[in-house]
Amino acid sequence: MTIAVIYGGTREKGNTETLTEKAVQGLELEKIYLKDYSIQPIEDLRHSPEGFKNVNDDYNSIIDRILEHDILIFSTPIYWYSMSGIMKNFIDRWSQTLRDSKYPDFKNKMSEKKAYVIAVGGDEPSLKGLPLIQQFQHIFNFIGISFDGYILGNGNRPDDILQDKDALFAASQLREKFIISD
Amino acid sequence: MTIAVIYGGTREKGNTETLTEKAVQGLELEKIYLKDYSIQPIEDLRHSPEGFKNVNDDYNSIIDRILEHDILIFSTPIYWYSMSGIMKNFIDRWSQTLRDSKYPDFKNKMSEKKAYVIAVGGDEPSLKGLPLIQQFQHIFNFIGISFDGYILGNGNRPDDILQDKDALFAASQLREKFIISD
Amino acid sequence: MTIAVIYGGTREKGNTETLTEKAVQGLELEKIYLKDYSIQPIEDLRHSPEGFKNVNDDYNSIIDRILEHDILIFSTPIYWYSMSGIMKNFIDRWSQTLRDSKYPDFKNKMSEKKAYVIAVGGDEPSLKGLPLIQQFQHIFNFIGISFDGYILGNGNRPDDILQDKDALFAASQLREKFIISD
Amino acid sequence: MTIAVIYGGTREKGNTETLTEKAVQGLELEKIYLKDYSIQPIEDLRHSPEGFKNVNDDYNSIIDRILEHDILIFSTPIYWYSMSGIMKNFIDRWSQTLRDSKYPDFKNKMSEKKAYVIAVGGDEPSLKGLPLIQQFQHIFNFIGISFDGYILGNGNRPDDILQDKDALFAASQLREKFIISD
Repeated sequence: MTIAVIYGGTREKGNTETLTEKAVQGLELEKIYLKDYSIQPIEDLRHSPEGFKNVNDDYNSIIDRILEHDILIFSTPIYWYSMSGIMKNFIDRWSQTLRDSKYPDFKNKMSEKKAYVIAVGGDEPSLKGLPLIQQFQHIFNFIGISFDGYILGNGNRPDDILQDKDALFAASQLREKFIISD
Repeated sequence: MTIAVIYGGTREKGNTETLTEKAVQGLELEKIYLKDYSIQPIEDLRHSPEGFKNVNDDYNSIIDRILEHDILIFSTPIYWYSMSGIMKNFIDRWSQTLRDSKYPDFKNKMSEKKAYVIAVGGDEPSLKGLPLIQQFQHIFNFIGISFDGYILGNGNRPDDILQDKDALFAASQLREKFIISD
Repeated sequence: MTIAVIYGGTREKGNTETLTEKAVQGLELEKIYLKDYSIQPIEDLRHSPEGFKNVNDDYNSIIDRILEHDILIFSTPIYWYSMSGIMKNFIDRWSQTLRDSKYPDFKNKMSEKKAYVIAVGGDEPSLKGLPLIQQFQHIFNFIGISFDGYILGNGNRPDDILQDKDALFAASQLREKFIISD
Repeated sequence: MTIAVIYGGTREKGNTETLTEKAVQGLELEKIYLKDYSIQPIEDLRHSPEGFKNVNDDYNSIIDRILEHDILIFSTPIYWYSMSGIMKNFIDRWSQTLRDSKYPDFKNKMSEKKAYVIAVGGDEPSLKGLPLIQQFQHIFNFIGISFDGYILGNGNRPDDILQDKDALFAASQLREKFIISD
C-alpha cells in the first residue's frame, strides 16, 4: 500500500501541507506539488472530429506517477471556497485521459484506489468548505474512486493549523489507519 | 446598466455560450473569453513580507474591463461538477487584487454589482451542480456582490441545450429583466 | 400513468399548493394532505428484539394510496430551510415500512416510481433551499425512486408565487411532460 | 455558562445520546427529550387575520427551559439524511414564537446563544449528512444564533458510535471547551 499526495497549494510549507504531513509522516509516499509543473487547462474537444490534441506539458507524467499508488490524497488550500485553480486544471484534464488511447485503463485503475481530501481554509471551513467536499464526492463517484475520508482544517496565517486540535487528531488517526492497512 | 459576460469555457459555441446568448442577445455587453488570455494561477504570498509580486499577464486588464459594468455573468461549462479551471484561476487571483494598491476600491466596486451564474453540464446538473452554486454563493457573499440568479442547463453534445426548455425560458426571462432594468 | 401529490403544507391554498396545481391541473391524480391525517413520529425500534410496534394511525392507509401511483410529487412549503415537520414524520416512518411484513415489496414498488419535489419558500429558496433538494436526492437514492425534477418557488405572502414566472413556467412544462408520458 | 441539550431521538440510549454524553458528562446541564413531550406541528397562520392560535401542548414550556441557557446542543439521529421529524416540528414552531406577544424577545434572546449540532447516522454521515449541517447553518443564521460547531458521527447498531474515534475525540474536545469557557 503506497500513497501519493497531490498538493494544490502555492505556498511553501503552508497550513495544508503541515496538516497533511501529520497524516503521512514517516510513511512511504510520493509528493506531487502541482505548482512545480506545467499543466495546461483542458481544451474541450470531446465532440470535435479529430478528438483531443496531444498536449506537450507535464500532465501525463503526473498521471503516470499517481497511477502507481493505492491511495491518493488531494491536499489543497481552500481558495474561494473550492480547490485551487491549479488542482482544478489538473482534474479537468482527466476528461482527456478518459478518452486517451495511451490510457485505456485509466478509469479502471483509478477505481481501484482510495481517495482522501485534506483542505485548509480561513473562513469557516467546516461550514463553507462543505460544497467542496460534495464536489469531490461527485468527482470520485464518477471516476469510481472510493472516497474514504476528508479533513477540513481551520487556518489562515502560517501555522494556524497547529491550533486546530480536531484536525490534527483526525490527521493522526488517518496516519494510524494507513499504517495498519499497510 | 451594462453587462460583462465572463466565459470560462474552452469550446467555441458550446452549450454554455448558446444558453448565455439567449439571456443577452441584442443587449449592449462585453464578452470576455478567459481562454483567449494568459492568466497565471495565484501565488499565495499574503503572509510573505514582500507581499504579492507583480504578475505580467492579462489578468489586470480583464479586471479593468469588468469593473466598468453593473452586471457580471459568470458563464461556465460544468467541468467535474465545478467551474472550469481557467475560471477558477481567474477568481483565485482576486485575493491578490484585494491587496493590490492599484485597486484600492476593488471590493467596494465589486459590491455594487449584480452577479448571475449560467452553467451547463451533462451529468444531472440540476442536482450535481448544486455545490457549484453554493460556492458561488459564498464567493459573492465574501466579495459583497449581490447574487441575483443562476441557470443550470442540461447539455453534453453540441446544441443539446436547445432541448432544455426550462433553461431556455429562464434565459429569456433573464433577458427581459435586463431590458426592463435598463 | 397516475399521480399522487403528497402535500406537507398546513395552510389552505398556500403558495406551494398553487404552484403544484399548475403542474397537475386537469390530470387524474390523488391529493393527500398530510395535515388532515394522524401520523405518529417513528419510534426507532430497529434494534429492539421485538422490532417495531404496530401503530394505530393513518400512516399505512397513506402508504397504500401512494403505492397505487406511478408518480409521486412531494409538495411542501419550505419551513426553516427544509420540508415541513409533518412531511418529515411521514418519511421517517418509511424505516418501519421497510421492515414491515405487511409490505414485503415496499422498496421494490417505490423504486418503480418517479418522484418530483415542489417547494416554495420566502428566503432565497433557489439558494437556501438547495440542501433540501440534496436531502431528497439522498432519500430517493436510498429508496430507489428516480428523482425526475424539482421546482423551487419564491413566495411568502399568499399568492406571491404568481409572480415567480420561472417557477410557473417550470410547472407548466412539468404538466406537459405528464400529459405526453400519459 | 449553562447548557441545554435538545434530543431529537426516539431510542433510549441511542448512539446520538452516547456521543452527546461524551461532550457534556459531568457538566451542569438540562436535558430535553423531545419524544417525551407533546409538540404539535405548526399551523401556518402568519397571514391569517387572527394570527396564530394558542396551542395547548408542551412546546412553550420547552422554549421557557432553553431560553435559560447559554449553549444549545441540537442532538439528533440522522433520519433520512435530516433531523428527526419531532425535532423538525419543534423548530417549525419557532415561526409562531417569533410572532408571539408572550415572547417579545425571542429572537434577541436566541441570538445571544451558541449552538452545536451532534448527529449520528449510519449511511456515510460525513458526506450525506452535509445538507443537514447546511440547513442548521441557515436556521441559525436566521434566528441569529452563533453556530459554533458540529459533530457527525457514524453509527447504526447500538453502541456503534464507540468505534468512531474521530467523533469521540471531537466530543471530548467540545467538553474541554465547555469547561474552559465556564
